[in-house]
Amino acid sequence: MHIDSQMLAAFGECRNKVIYVFENQLFRLQICFIKKRRNTHTLSKKYAVEDATFTVRTNTNVFIYPIGPIKIMSNNKIHIFDTTLRDGEQVPGCKLNTSEKVAIALQLEALGVDIIEAGFPISSPGDFQSVQEISLAVKDVSVCGLSRAVQKDIETAAEALKHARRPRIHTGIGTSDYHIKAKFNSTREDILQRAIQCVKWARNYTDEVEFYAEDAGRTDNEYLAQVIEAVIAAGATVVNIPDTTGYCLPYQYGDKIAYLVNNVPNIDKAIISCHCHNDLGLATANSIAGVIAGARQIECTINGLGERAGNTSLEEVVMIIRQHGHLGFHTDVKAPMLNPISRLVSDTMRMPVQPNKAIVGSNAFSHSSGIHQDGFLKDAQTYEIIAPDEVGADTSKIILTARSGRSALAYRFRKLGYDFNRDEVDKLYEQFLQIADEKKEVQDEDLKALAVAMAGVEMN
Amino acid sequence: MHIDSQMLAAFGECRNKVIYVFENQLFRLQICFIKKRRNTHTLSKKYAVEDATFTVRTNTNVFIYPIGPIKIMSNNKIHIFDTTLRDGEQVPGCKLNTSEKVAIALQLEALGVDIIEAGFPISSPGDFQSVQEISLAVKDVSVCGLSRAVQKDIETAAEALKHARRPRIHTGIGTSDYHIKAKFNSTREDILQRAIQCVKWARNYTDEVEFYAEDAGRTDNEYLAQVIEAVIAAGATVVNIPDTTGYCLPYQYGDKIAYLVNNVPNIDKAIISCHCHNDLGLATANSIAGVIAGARQIECTINGLGERAGNTSLEEVVMIIRQHGHLGFHTDVKAPMLNPISRLVSDTMRMPVQPNKAIVGSNAFSHSSGIHQDGFLKDAQTYEIIAPDEVGADTSKIILTARSGRSALAYRFRKLGYDFNRDEVDKLYEQFLQIADEKKEVQDEDLKALAVAMAGVEMN
Repeated sequence: MHIDSQMLAAFGECRNKVIYVFENQLFRLQICFIKKRRNTHTLSKKYAVEDATFTVRTNTNVFIYPIGPIKIMSNNKIHIFDTTLRDGEQVPGCKLNTSEKVAIALQLEALGVDIIEAGFPISSPGDFQSVQEISLAVKDVSVCGLSRAVQKDIETAAEALKHARRPRIHTGIGTSDYHIKAKFNSTREDILQRAIQCVKWARNYTDEVEFYAEDAGRTDNEYLAQVIEAVIAAGATVVNIPDTTGYCLPYQYGDKIAYLVNNVPNIDKAIISCHCHNDLGLATANSIAGVIAGARQIECTINGLGERAGNTSLEEVVMIIRQHGHLGFHTDVKAPMLNPISRLVSDTMRMPVQPNKAIVGSNAFSHSSGIHQDGFLKDAQTYEIIAPDEVGADTSKIILTARSGRSALAYRFRKLGYDFNRDEVDKLYEQFLQIADEKKEVQDEDLKALAVAMAGVEMN
Repeated sequence: MHIDSQMLAAFGECRNKVIYVFENQLFRLQICFIKKRRNTHTLSKKYAVEDATFTVRTNTNVFIYPIGPIKIMSNNKIHIFDTTLRDGEQVPGCKLNTSEKVAIALQLEALGVDIIEAGFPISSPGDFQSVQEISLAVKDVSVCGLSRAVQKDIETAAEALKHARRPRIHTGIGTSDYHIKAKFNSTREDILQRAIQCVKWARNYTDEVEFYAEDAGRTDNEYLAQVIEAVIAAGATVVNIPDTTGYCLPYQYGDKIAYLVNNVPNIDKAIISCHCHNDLGLATANSIAGVIAGARQIECTINGLGERAGNTSLEEVVMIIRQHGHLGFHTDVKAPMLNPISRLVSDTMRMPVQPNKAIVGSNAFSHSSGIHQDGFLKDAQTYEIIAPDEVGADTSKIILTARSGRSALAYRFRKLGYDFNRDEVDKLYEQFLQIADEKKEVQDEDLKALAVAMAGVEMN
């Protein structure tokens, strides 16, 4: 195939670079690795790119051109892998008994997650029992058990998952040089062989085998691609690329996923999974960068619980995917259950959610500044991108403080049954501010006292 | 200037696209807007790009080529604008009195922030007094007062800031169509005139004038660029681009900043500021995308406090900039003060920080799973990218639960003074797991009881 100059001009040519092209969904794009001979361009290899976004990194010339109207890929479902009961539950103070775990698992299934990681069966008899009971309790969702790349771990996980309708064994090993040297005192070649071996062991028991390359965030991309190719060849159906230490920036994590998409020849035989930690506050952004680059599973927890600063928040990635429909992704999560399940997990695990937590914090839909209240009362969309009932939260709150303005005060008086005119509101506002400067929050009782003094009548 | 084909081949050409080129810091790059006439390319406009990363969006042809070794720009200082006492304090339940505000302001100054937004003087007499007292109390840091685009607001802010050594008036207006129509019932042209007017009023009082384009995240870029150009011409020294509703994805927010960098002719006369909200959990990632694209100020709060789901967390952006030195940025914040000031603000404002909050949560440096504890004890770097004392946190904790392994158990026994051999640890581990399955966390007392039974001696 030859490429004409019009095609060349329309998109671009690049060498040795990462390029993100956020195209406008009008075209299907094709990336070609080209050899240039005088004035003709010959294709050496090509990929059709049907995603809204793509990334390419290469050492050869790359040429990108449109080949027709874009079609949304059929695999734009993002699988939600919930690890609240494993990575979340291993948090100090969060330990649950089996019946508590089963109750949460049933709610996660109702929520619509695709996979529940139920525990780490070899780690304790209690964990083994929980994985077993959850396997019996849930119906359609996959149940996953964690293991190290150790035969006994995998056998124990398989045993615990025996009754699951859709059992998944999650096994793997550290692949960064930090882990290979400091933790295993080993070599890259040895770790590669152990990775292949553990996947083969696991495939003796289940069809769904997920491999994790621990500390992939700090693993050399070339070696990581080699490991991933080998474990897919050995039978892994999902490949998990954890940013174990929460180190990556979103563009770096996205690049890593894109590198695997472009450099692992058998990558189409597995789903890439994002497992991000929040040590720098970037777990959610990294997971989204990962799916934009080609991953189709996100590992996450309710309320972002997890080791250290926690994992990706389930509620955040789900709502980003809903709010940003232009990305073309969807999940099967029922958003109105997000707040109820957040409270269930917080109460059962005794882990408070801070008031300013996105989506599920008690203040997530509260408006207190005067400017915001005024705008919000005219049109909620001025300050609210998500309606609270969309995520099962209480109705948006207007809280009266010294920062509130006249419009919020008049609104609250009307709610209490008082309809004051403009001059009256002005007078009441002065009195209101005096109270508000003394108290954190002005209550209905305070307002009624003001109204009575103003109107001379008491109402209920 | 003409461009030869070698240059063209080395980088790339693109039209009507956003391109991120994460180059390898070997080159300084230049972006050129080119006109193509037959086989020659003529530059119509060019920018030198000295940052490690850049973004470009344009409707014309763009051409990128290297012009020499990269030089880190001299203006890579990221200004930290703390709004804990304004956007943070307007949260329900957080109201502070003047002396509490002054105490926090003095700690913020010691922390090394560049600007303290001390309040919204017109909003209440208490707020006015706080801005006045903070202006008197601090020395070198800029003190900022908020105002709407209203003459009386600006006069009041100026009056409250009268004693500040470096006073800054922060004024502005909503620029999205949501705000223009629903909140102001106005037109783009009218809002543009009001924006210019408020900056002119403010410049009568202070040299530092910051303009905010409220809801810039949902404002049409072309109109936003027009407003920003006009307010800089009117005297604004800082232009704040708030994602007021917390809607943007990082690449979108970065694109918006890059659009302004590339399309506002006088942009070099002002500093661009990021003000992001956390409604989708992306405030930190968006702020970092903003500075990568060319902004040099981040508006943030301690613990991410703020309206609804809060603002960008100061501790997160500061630590990302420290950890990712390859970005070439720095701040003047003293990281070891981050945890102490987090506790001060949390206690004073009575706003709990969840245990799994990045950098400042009580679990941010706790390791509880067996795999993690084993790795951590061999080399902290396997699971920790930040040493706790770097951010003033307590030493990393090893917490014994049912998820802990033998190595953590043996380590804790050694700390208690018992040195058991491998077989003994194996036996103790079985007994330990029974206790751990019943209790959330195994305490030193439990271990001592086990050790006594095993060793037959009691030690202190």
